[in-house]
Amino acid sequence: MATKPFQDFYPDHMAHCYGCGRLNDVGHQIKSYWDGEESICLFKPEPYHISIPGYVYGGLIASLVDCHGTGTAAAAGYRAENRSMDSLPPLRYLTASLHVDYLKPTPLNVILELRGIVKEIKGRKVVVEINVIANDIITARGQVVAVQVPEHLIPGLIES
Amino acid sequence: MATKPFQDFYPDHMAHCYGCGRLNDVGHQIKSYWDGEESICLFKPEPYHISIPGYVYGGLIASLVDCHGTGTAAAAGYRAENRSMDSLPPLRYLTASLHVDYLKPTPLNVILELRGIVKEIKGRKVVVEINVIANDIITARGQVVAVQVPEHLIPGLIES
Repeated sequence: MATKPFQDFYPDHMAHCYGCGRLNDVGHQIKSYWDGEESICLFKPEPYHISIPGYVYGGLIASLVDCHGTGTAAAAGYRAENRSMDSLPPLRYLTASLHVDYLKPTPLNVILELRGIVKEIKGRKVVVEINVIANDIITARGQVVAVQVPEHLIPGLIES
Repeated sequence: MATKPFQDFYPDHMAHCYGCGRLNDVGHQIKSYWDGEESICLFKPEPYHISIPGYVYGGLIASLVDCHGTGTAAAAGYRAENRSMDSLPPLRYLTASLHVDYLKPTPLNVILELRGIVKEIKGRKVVVEINVIANDIITARGQVVAVQVPEHLIPGLIES
């Protein structure tokens, strides 16, 4: 299971997210895994994901933090229930709030490493802290407050 | 001047941002304007900017908040110095921190309205609050802490 990313367990109808959906052909399709107690995601920005020349656009960093955060939240939810991510019912999380501190400029042309730490898991809420690392330096630190998707937002009940 | 967006005043070498650079052909190229004391930006997400079916991906919302925030910060900086945005030296801001509260799901297929309010302007720092509005409903609320770009990050002094 450690070799299959969290996002590959998302049910098909919830796998269209631009940031992390494996079925979104033009999206980022990030992949997150457990690495011991932390979650990890590696991502290489494209040359056009630029802010000022040489550095990564903050909106991309926020997007990666967001989706790695909700992915980690889902994985943590299953882990807390002591079941595998392919067991039913599926757990899927949305972002209630996102915070990113941009500590240093993040260089382009580098594989970014995002490391998530589950800070809190309580009821339908999971709080994940995420460090964004480039060349072994933490360039941004994020926090995602994720909540389980309410049933009335599950596709099939709404128009897409 | 009211008919020319903030971003059109950015110097060429700082107009490549994926979110707001007019010279980034594949980016969002958002456009921000004053509307009285508030700043406004209209943006229509693409169909693939999806989170769960029917709703906008939170990373895009964060990106729009970020770039509308730094644009508003720049415009506020010039206004505080009582000079036009095409006067020299150029002011350009980066994001120190970004916070977004996702209050409700943001529907796709709608033109989003972002409204910025300058909450603080002090030295090199500007704090902007931004409401994201869809169908006249505030679906997300952001805060951007923007700081003037340090001179050592100005392109020409660094490799791009």
